[in-house]
Amino acid sequence: MKGNIFYAQSGGVTPVINATALGLIDEYYKNKRYFNKFYVGKNGILGALKEELIDIASEDKKQLKLLKYSPGGAFGSCRLKLKDFKKSEREFERIYRVFKAHNIKYFFYNGGGDSQDTTNKISKFFKSKNYPIVCIGLPKTIDNDLPITHCCPGFGSVAKYIATSTLEASLDVKSMSETSTKVFILEVMGRHAGWLAASAGVIKKKASDSPHIILFPEIEFKQKYFLSKVKDTIKKHGYCVIVASEGIKSKKKFISDSGLKDSFGHAQLGGVAPVLSNMITQQLHYKVHWAVSDYLQRSARHLASKVDVDQAYMLGKMGIVYAKKNVSDIMLIIKEIQSAKAYKWNVSSTSLESVANIEKMLPKNFIKSNGYEITKSCKNYISNLINGESHPRYIKGIPEYAKLSCKTIKKKLSPYRL
Amino acid sequence: MKGNIFYAQSGGVTPVINATALGLIDEYYKNKRYFNKFYVGKNGILGALKEELIDIASEDKKQLKLLKYSPGGAFGSCRLKLKDFKKSEREFERIYRVFKAHNIKYFFYNGGGDSQDTTNKISKFFKSKNYPIVCIGLPKTIDNDLPITHCCPGFGSVAKYIATSTLEASLDVKSMSETSTKVFILEVMGRHAGWLAASAGVIKKKASDSPHIILFPEIEFKQKYFLSKVKDTIKKHGYCVIVASEGIKSKKKFISDSGLKDSFGHAQLGGVAPVLSNMITQQLHYKVHWAVSDYLQRSARHLASKVDVDQAYMLGKMGIVYAKKNVSDIMLIIKEIQSAKAYKWNVSSTSLESVANIEKMLPKNFIKSNGYEITKSCKNYISNLINGESHPRYIKGIPEYAKLSCKTIKKKLSPYRL
Repeated sequence: MKGNIFYAQSGGVTPVINATALGLIDEYYKNKRYFNKFYVGKNGILGALKEELIDIASEDKKQLKLLKYSPGGAFGSCRLKLKDFKKSEREFERIYRVFKAHNIKYFFYNGGGDSQDTTNKISKFFKSKNYPIVCIGLPKTIDNDLPITHCCPGFGSVAKYIATSTLEASLDVKSMSETSTKVFILEVMGRHAGWLAASAGVIKKKASDSPHIILFPEIEFKQKYFLSKVKDTIKKHGYCVIVASEGIKSKKKFISDSGLKDSFGHAQLGGVAPVLSNMITQQLHYKVHWAVSDYLQRSARHLASKVDVDQAYMLGKMGIVYAKKNVSDIMLIIKEIQSAKAYKWNVSSTSLESVANIEKMLPKNFIKSNGYEITKSCKNYISNLINGESHPRYIKGIPEYAKLSCKTIKKKLSPYRL
Repeated sequence: MKGNIFYAQSGGVTPVINATALGLIDEYYKNKRYFNKFYVGKNGILGALKEELIDIASEDKKQLKLLKYSPGGAFGSCRLKLKDFKKSEREFERIYRVFKAHNIKYFFYNGGGDSQDTTNKISKFFKSKNYPIVCIGLPKTIDNDLPITHCCPGFGSVAKYIATSTLEASLDVKSMSETSTKVFILEVMGRHAGWLAASAGVIKKKASDSPHIILFPEIEFKQKYFLSKVKDTIKKHGYCVIVASEGIKSKKKFISDSGLKDSFGHAQLGGVAPVLSNMITQQLHYKVHWAVSDYLQRSARHLASKVDVDQAYMLGKMGIVYAKKNVSDIMLIIKEIQSAKAYKWNVSSTSLESVANIEKMLPKNFIKSNGYEITKSCKNYISNLINGESHPRYIKGIPEYAKLSCKTIKKKLSPYRL
């Protein structure tokens, strides 16, 4: 009997993770004779633990096609990292029983560093059980912090959103700056690596252009230096645009953790932008506007990069190609093909072992020595990844996004207590 | 000798105010024999006071054409409201001298309520001087709060941005909600009128759809009722999406002004979303994500509504048509043409007197009796205005926006002290 496929989405979602799902599904239908059923775990690996499997065959074909254009995780995602075998034996045993009961012979896990680690552990556990299964990790993270792969699906689209939004808001504050707002701050995601903050830098051609200051988590935040740079920028150019990573920190602490308290004395949660805004208003007395894009940035499918969508989709397709050949214990990667002209890439693979729990930071030569601008190499790298548009279809002014039923199949095992 | 035109942009800018400028410019070139020069005031009415006039003829034609696709105020805007004649006689006298020196016979002012008031005052002042000048107000405000006109240019595009962003972020939080974030809050602009918050409501088709709670400035905020609604929504649907106007208030005070203090004891500025987030985390213990879109919403030209762009552009064109006929003391308006099929509109006019200093709030029958949803009438109204796309051209992944020189002409008068 041919084996069944189990696919699941894991961790923080992206504007293009569903494109990877569709790549798998499309290629699966083309290679139907090699596989039996295509199941998706509801809410990531939780779907395996709870035996909640969605049969792709029961979904509407037209809605599935829309996955290429839909943000979020269409089948639900989860934040659940499996611990070591010894500590999580019960979970591993349960996944084993569920996979066995449903004849799962192909396991695809679509996620970031933690998820690749989970895939690796599951593969090892199944080996210890002598249960043959193909385990393939599919990369996904807007943080762009997976090693070995040239880039991570999701990053290009969010980078395009941040670059475009920074350009647009800069034109706004520039036109208001003579009599009103002089500073605009955009807070972007990135707790450890400054890839997303860096992406705003691609719109800067000359010194007067925004963003005037990028704050990276890799660079220690120094309040005095920062404030003098803000003052100087306004003196020179009339306004100042700042893009700040949520994870910036001074020597002692995270900037977002600056002791803000509400009227009940409760510590206020998060937000680097309001803290920086307060700092500038109190010390320099300029009018400041700030934005925190939060989930908007990582779900803005309407502004996705075509390169990013194409890579995400192709990774899915290649997942089936590798599975067909029974290649296991790998994560698929994007490989850049050296070319003098345009950016070219293809899909290759690396061992799961080589990627688990390694975080790729912004390289030193991507940040200028002043600490608040990106270099030409960085600009080239990001420009390639944000290129091209992939507009969704709009109905009555609103993008048309996939609506799946996500109906789960009949369970075979007794319930499991999480 | 034929008269010159003076045009200026005023108040908070929009994604389509430059489309109105281009409408004027295009129609001016078509009717060149009726007019002499086309000047634009640098930074709104400040350009008149400081005698900083930009001659459209000295700008690159290709860049001018891009105005249809560019956010911000390409010639600079200002926040400066002229007071009564008696209190501001010096300003009025200065504008009179500058206009006379440059043979200005047509005055177009592109702005919201305050700007229409300024246009009205300038018209009256010039009459008292027996100086013939055509004064025409061109509406513009994302707040959609000007009376008489069916809608205000700028609103449709920002509404489209808010509806789309809410839909996208909802798909994100929905996929994370099983194991992580359960609540997403989007703060939108609107100090007095809830038009922009309302616009998120167009994506809701059934009770389970987001946004689950819209907070309007027109409705008194009641914490207990709000929190019970959040809890109830999560119990029923697994997650909760909230769209909040920046201007919401309880009986006593603005919610954003909730006594947040930084570690130095300074009051923290603005932000309804973090306050609501804190409230939910402290009292209901759910994980919350929040976004403040601020300038991003009103500069997101990449997501503009075609209807909105068309209306903004046509208002500019019609400005020249009215001016050619020497019709003065009017503000141009959008008039809906009753039609059973599609939304149809044309440009008409009303007296400046009729619009000055009147704020159009969200009608009572646009908010459901529960106080946190919009009615079908409201949905129909907004749906018409967000319809159609008007994508900018992208170069290397980034929208191509106009870059003007904004070089001012030689001054004829002595400097003026503001």
